[in-house]
Amino acid sequence: CKRNKLAATRIPLFQMTVEYSSKVATATGAIGFVRLLFRWTGSIYKVVWLSLLLYMMLFFFLSYMYHYILDRGQQRIFERICVFCRRYVSTIPLSFILGFYVDIVMDRWWGQFTKIPWPDGVGFAVITSVKGTNDKSRLIRRTIMRYVNLAFVMTMQLCSPPCKERFPTWDHFVEAGFLLEQEKEIIEHLSEHTDEPKYWLPLAWAVNVAAKARKEDKIYDDVSFCYLVKEVNAFRTKCQTILCYDWICIPIVYTQVVTIACYLYFTCMVLARQFLESSEFVVGQEGAEFNVIVPIFLFVEFFFYFGWLNVAETLVNPFGSDDDDFEVNYLIDRHLKVSYAMVDDITSLMPEMAQDVYWN
Amino acid sequence: CKRNKLAATRIPLFQMTVEYSSKVATATGAIGFVRLLFRWTGSIYKVVWLSLLLYMMLFFFLSYMYHYILDRGQQRIFERICVFCRRYVSTIPLSFILGFYVDIVMDRWWGQFTKIPWPDGVGFAVITSVKGTNDKSRLIRRTIMRYVNLAFVMTMQLCSPPCKERFPTWDHFVEAGFLLEQEKEIIEHLSEHTDEPKYWLPLAWAVNVAAKARKEDKIYDDVSFCYLVKEVNAFRTKCQTILCYDWICIPIVYTQVVTIACYLYFTCMVLARQFLESSEFVVGQEGAEFNVIVPIFLFVEFFFYFGWLNVAETLVNPFGSDDDDFEVNYLIDRHLKVSYAMVDDITSLMPEMAQDVYWN
Amino acid sequence: CKRNKLAATRIPLFQMTVEYSSKVATATGAIGFVRLLFRWTGSIYKVVWLSLLLYMMLFFFLSYMYHYILDRGQQRIFERICVFCRRYVSTIPLSFILGFYVDIVMDRWWGQFTKIPWPDGVGFAVITSVKGTNDKSRLIRRTIMRYVNLAFVMTMQLCSPPCKERFPTWDHFVEAGFLLEQEKEIIEHLSEHTDEPKYWLPLAWAVNVAAKARKEDKIYDDVSFCYLVKEVNAFRTKCQTILCYDWICIPIVYTQVVTIACYLYFTCMVLARQFLESSEFVVGQEGAEFNVIVPIFLFVEFFFYFGWLNVAETLVNPFGSDDDDFEVNYLIDRHLKVSYAMVDDITSLMPEMAQDVYWN
Amino acid sequence: CKRNKLAATRIPLFQMTVEYSSKVATATGAIGFVRLLFRWTGSIYKVVWLSLLLYMMLFFFLSYMYHYILDRGQQRIFERICVFCRRYVSTIPLSFILGFYVDIVMDRWWGQFTKIPWPDGVGFAVITSVKGTNDKSRLIRRTIMRYVNLAFVMTMQLCSPPCKERFPTWDHFVEAGFLLEQEKEIIEHLSEHTDEPKYWLPLAWAVNVAAKARKEDKIYDDVSFCYLVKEVNAFRTKCQTILCYDWICIPIVYTQVVTIACYLYFTCMVLARQFLESSEFVVGQEGAEFNVIVPIFLFVEFFFYFGWLNVAETLVNPFGSDDDDFEVNYLIDRHLKVSYAMVDDITSLMPEMAQDVYWN
Amino acid sequence: CKRNKLAATRIPLFQMTVEYSSKVATATGAIGFVRLLFRWTGSIYKVVWLSLLLYMMLFFFLSYMYHYILDRGQQRIFERICVFCRRYVSTIPLSFILGFYVDIVMDRWWGQFTKIPWPDGVGFAVITSVKGTNDKSRLIRRTIMRYVNLAFVMTMQLCSPPCKERFPTWDHFVEAGFLLEQEKEIIEHLSEHTDEPKYWLPLAWAVNVAAKARKEDKIYDDVSFCYLVKEVNAFRTKCQTILCYDWICIPIVYTQVVTIACYLYFTCMVLARQFLESSEFVVGQEGAEFNVIVPIFLFVEFFFYFGWLNVAETLVNPFGSDDDDFEVNYLIDRHLKVSYAMVDDITSLMPEMAQDVYWN
Repeated sequence: CKRNKLAATRIPLFQMTVEYSSKVATATGAIGFVRLLFRWTGSIYKVVWLSLLLYMMLFFFLSYMYHYILDRGQQRIFERICVFCRRYVSTIPLSFILGFYVDIVMDRWWGQFTKIPWPDGVGFAVITSVKGTNDKSRLIRRTIMRYVNLAFVMTMQLCSPPCKERFPTWDHFVEAGFLLEQEKEIIEHLSEHTDEPKYWLPLAWAVNVAAKARKEDKIYDDVSFCYLVKEVNAFRTKCQTILCYDWICIPIVYTQVVTIACYLYFTCMVLARQFLESSEFVVGQEGAEFNVIVPIFLFVEFFFYFGWLNVAETLVNPFGSDDDDFEVNYLIDRHLKVSYAMVDDITSLMPEMAQDVYWN
Repeated sequence: CKRNKLAATRIPLFQMTVEYSSKVATATGAIGFVRLLFRWTGSIYKVVWLSLLLYMMLFFFLSYMYHYILDRGQQRIFERICVFCRRYVSTIPLSFILGFYVDIVMDRWWGQFTKIPWPDGVGFAVITSVKGTNDKSRLIRRTIMRYVNLAFVMTMQLCSPPCKERFPTWDHFVEAGFLLEQEKEIIEHLSEHTDEPKYWLPLAWAVNVAAKARKEDKIYDDVSFCYLVKEVNAFRTKCQTILCYDWICIPIVYTQVVTIACYLYFTCMVLARQFLESSEFVVGQEGAEFNVIVPIFLFVEFFFYFGWLNVAETLVNPFGSDDDDFEVNYLIDRHLKVSYAMVDDITSLMPEMAQDVYWN
Repeated sequence: CKRNKLAATRIPLFQMTVEYSSKVATATGAIGFVRLLFRWTGSIYKVVWLSLLLYMMLFFFLSYMYHYILDRGQQRIFERICVFCRRYVSTIPLSFILGFYVDIVMDRWWGQFTKIPWPDGVGFAVITSVKGTNDKSRLIRRTIMRYVNLAFVMTMQLCSPPCKERFPTWDHFVEAGFLLEQEKEIIEHLSEHTDEPKYWLPLAWAVNVAAKARKEDKIYDDVSFCYLVKEVNAFRTKCQTILCYDWICIPIVYTQVVTIACYLYFTCMVLARQFLESSEFVVGQEGAEFNVIVPIFLFVEFFFYFGWLNVAETLVNPFGSDDDDFEVNYLIDRHLKVSYAMVDDITSLMPEMAQDVYWN
Repeated sequence: CKRNKLAATRIPLFQMTVEYSSKVATATGAIGFVRLLFRWTGSIYKVVWLSLLLYMMLFFFLSYMYHYILDRGQQRIFERICVFCRRYVSTIPLSFILGFYVDIVMDRWWGQFTKIPWPDGVGFAVITSVKGTNDKSRLIRRTIMRYVNLAFVMTMQLCSPPCKERFPTWDHFVEAGFLLEQEKEIIEHLSEHTDEPKYWLPLAWAVNVAAKARKEDKIYDDVSFCYLVKEVNAFRTKCQTILCYDWICIPIVYTQVVTIACYLYFTCMVLARQFLESSEFVVGQEGAEFNVIVPIFLFVEFFFYFGWLNVAETLVNPFGSDDDDFEVNYLIDRHLKVSYAMVDDITSLMPEMAQDVYWN
Repeated sequence: CKRNKLAATRIPLFQMTVEYSSKVATATGAIGFVRLLFRWTGSIYKVVWLSLLLYMMLFFFLSYMYHYILDRGQQRIFERICVFCRRYVSTIPLSFILGFYVDIVMDRWWGQFTKIPWPDGVGFAVITSVKGTNDKSRLIRRTIMRYVNLAFVMTMQLCSPPCKERFPTWDHFVEAGFLLEQEKEIIEHLSEHTDEPKYWLPLAWAVNVAAKARKEDKIYDDVSFCYLVKEVNAFRTKCQTILCYDWICIPIVYTQVVTIACYLYFTCMVLARQFLESSEFVVGQEGAEFNVIVPIFLFVEFFFYFGWLNVAETLVNPFGSDDDDFEVNYLIDRHLKVSYAMVDDITSLMPEMAQDVYWN
């Protein structure tokens, strides 16, 4: 049956995500986090290794060039450039800027997550207000939930590339069971006049369906009817907020300042950390000869700051397909399944009330 | 027909804004942000290039003057002034002050955005409560929505220069279809007695229209009537908050402290970074001779801090016409269009309820 | 007529406040803020100039004394004291402490502003619930609004000195039309037994008036009656919160730590920045000889930190009469005017419903 | 009469608290805060003077010992220890840790304050729903308010030592009029089975009283009955939150880290700031000879950081009896008085409605 | 009787938690925190001592090796490595990164705590709406509360290891009295088709039970019925949020950056703080010879930063079994007990209404 088809396409909830909190549930003297260092999915190694490799190659190439290719005069100039970088690179307040920026990005990221709408609340309002078990009542309940899920998918399709990929045209909505043929025609008819987001349309339909149900006394009272409308409206507000987050980004100037700071800092550092042979630079070079072999602190800094910058990049748009991004496609399936289960399936799966074990 | 006229004047949603989140949806090793460096609209280059050019000219003029124009004695004095600046300029905690200030400004900026009222919630309440399809009911629904949109435009006109430009007089409101002639007269009559903001007036009208509709039984029940009033009131609260943000700014002292700090810092730096020829200043000048050619770190710092300051300036009043400001005029059109569509058009565009594909 | 009298005493909304956001609506390469530097009202110059002048006099007096009055031995001691200050003054983390403190103060300041109650919400609830146009209904509506405004003024009188000045006794309330004679007597009767804040009393009266109106069927239904009570209660909560902010300040220890830090820092700096003649102090004094003429960086620092401290001082109690403080007396007038206009005047100023221009 | 007895035991609102905002209502060039320096109650002097005195004695004892008691060899060792401390003490990021910690503590502190329940909201709901003036209605109103106040006191007794002191046993509740004899017996009966917090019990009683009143038609309608229950529930949520704050503290590890950092820092500083006589330590000791006389900067630092730490200590549990703590016992009295006044007394103190002065 | 059995298994509320706020209720000159230093449970000593011991052994081993095992040439190399570390280790901004990270973690931690659902609100709604004392009404009340508690346990079992341990299978739910046999079968039947979280299922059952009760007139009115559904829905939202927190962690990259920074820093420090014998390293080693005996500052730093890191580790998943974690199993028992007490037991324990002592 068709419901099985839906079940077959579902994605399990705790599988595809970079979830590690259960691994650190019990702290053991700050050792617990060590286990996280050996993760690959979503890890800092995965995102930084290529850049680091290129950066290392650049460093050693410059180092080789300085020591073996350049003649004495060229070396002099190179050394002065290095000293120049060494002196002024510290004027770039990289950690400060990055700290503030990542803080803002994380706030937005979590704000976006909390604004993702879940249809469960609407489901509760539907079973509260539309009570009958006849086909008409079932149809009303399922239609409202379908519209709510449709609005969710339409919202996600506008801001999430993986979702856009899954639902490139309205036909894909029909195929996935979110949209009926005659509804598609209405949406397409409207799309001729305006290409604005129409995520609110299915929700307005849902309200109208509810209003009609109230008129036909499928919904018995005004209070729960109003409650249903409020829940649908809350859903709409969340969809709208998600799109607003997508619309109004962090000012691009801020992002550019951070990016330029980061790249420039490491461009200078590749010179500043070169070991210079001339005796006049001895002061301030203690131990720097190890940099010829392996400038570990430089690479570690690179590792840190690019890892940190990458946190920002991943979180700026959390609806993409990064390891750390929200599983939009999973959520779509989950929402539809739970919606139908809540308003339709469990009416046939209600347990009998019986006395609990503590009944005296 | 007239609705087409409205559609003709609309501005597409995702076009005029500095929107870049879709470009960084999937992070690729912190490389993604690099693509953002080549944007012009709303970019740091666009806002800083002129200032930077002037600043560079100043630097090189001073440098030329010192090296080729001044005599030995004047050079001595110039050198001492430079050393004086070099020594004490670090006492200005520029990044610290700017960091705190930008943080506060961004909080306000996002706060303002979330407080922009959207009429969609009122629209839902209207279709919930005013149900008939006859002309009287349509009129009630459209009038309430028009009043709500009118309140929005009146609010925006008070705090947004581009909106003020578009609607300089009440006649422009009438022309755009937000206001009727007889309503204009009432507002003008009131304006003779007081020049206070009257954004709440159309909303009070809307409530009165709803109250009359309730009395005439166009609204059937008290619950949804009350719900409608609450939504209108929520709209009013948001309009009021937007005006409050405009009224109560960040204390001007704070803004002045930051601005003075920034300007003074770079006034001193243009001296502090000069390369001095006298042998007594060798210590602390390593590599500084490159500053004669191109003082890249100075210009980079200038770039950073003025970019950062510009973020603040753009966000202090987000209802202006900067690249990063909110598209107020677009919102006005969008709101009116969606309002009418929601409460009127879709009543003729309701799909028939039908069984979905998962119906067993 | 009396309403004109009210209109005559009104204070225009956007006039008396330090409002500058419209001036920086469109950023022009970080130049926009420059215009703000030439403001006097509420400016940093206005608040700091006197202190700075005194501080400058102190500096030059000490300088003069050292160079021309003290004998060699006294100079030696003075120099050692200066070096002592110079060495240890940096241990005072002034910018750090001030940054944290101002951050907290600004949070509270904005929190207080958002908690100022506006009677508009109650007004909407009143026109929703009390509908008639007869004198009894008008009286009910006006009385409720008057009580709400009275509660506001009573609250403000407790925490705002300018408001206290305007309304020193209950008679001034009567005179301004907030209180009737018989109500004054009740309040005075209660004041004999307790001198606690009684801001909740008019609001309780308002609820009782509404309850009586409900009983006499001036309010037709329970839902809107309950809505009215909730709005009045929300108003009461905000009054209470405003008083709580006034009651529970930032711990005085924190304020004292910041103030002492600031004063001590500049007491030491006036010594630390003196130019010392003895040759042994040459190192670390590069360019310091300019300090004899004009120690610009010291004064700039003074300017910054005292400006910053002044931001805190202004915002700690925003209900005073500083340039940046909230215009409490204006709000009182505005609230009363809008209240009466909303629940009474506009009933005679309702426009006829008519078809809008987009009606097809 | 008994009400007078209550009035006799009341504590005036603005008397016992460290309230200073009115003193700084109008800023006068950052001079305003100076007045706060001369406060004793709740001041930094009061909390730090003893510790500072002991610390000063320790410093001078060590100084005396070094200069006059130790022989040359011992002096050498002492000097090396001092230099050791001097060198590494800066590795303790004290201001950073303290800044973050105090920030968190202040957030919690204000969070707790905003969660203190005020019975005024319930009072409004009670006069909204239970309207009669007969004895039965009065009894219902008074009983509900008494239960609400009882819940407040039971909550406070669990988390506030001064309140626990005032109400050590249930008999004290009875004596103060919060509890009746038969209610005490029920609570004691339950306490035999469980010693969990029972603050929710009086609130459940209140709901049951309301439910019975609804059944007996003392409450006329469902809407205001439901509103009353919601207010009582909101009160319960706040009580619960207050207890949760008491239950879940800031992790003790964090507090320990901060405390150890602070104590260790000053243990080292007492050595690091000693003036060493050996000529080899001249560099880095400029002006340090004044430390023998009075190491003012050390004591100032001590003053700052212990003042700051004390802010944290005071705010970690704001229900104690510090000068800056919330006046729990005052609140208890105030709440009971206002509760009874609101639901009972003012029914006989309602003014007649009359036309206001602006009535035209 | 069975209720006693429940009481027997309860865990007292204030016993197992690291609760210390009552110990610092009254500050005594920053001395109060000292008492906290002697706590073991949940203390910094408990979590760090083992790591510190290992770290100390490593330091002294290296020190011994350097001084007594290595030959002159090897010593030279070792010394250069030490100087290398000494020079660059400061480039790791450890306190800055840790500060930001711990701040974010603490925000999440408290956010999670405030989202833990408490059934008390539902209980109030149940006694408001389902009023009878007959067995049917009692059964409805108890069943709704049981379902609510069941949802809580199912949620906790998904994110809390100690809870998972206590309830490994559905049979354990049945045994503990949360689930009946026939309900278990339904859940197991559903689990065959999907292994998604089903925490919403019992809550949907609860709503259905309430809906049936409304139909059978066990709930008299729509308003309180709707209130009950809203409370159940609020409970569901909180369960969902708790699971979302568990699902969407802080990006693992961030955690890895912090962990690597911390470990690398101390790996370098163990070398950097070695006392080097060669005379060329005298500068910058003042007092460092004490490091051979006991490098107290190194160990103190280790103590701090690992303590701080451990705060983060403990709080990242607060549903584990750390000393500072939330007492999930206690909460489960408490919730069930209070639920039954609230909706069933106290109906037989209602005190008679009587006049209070202040009744005049």
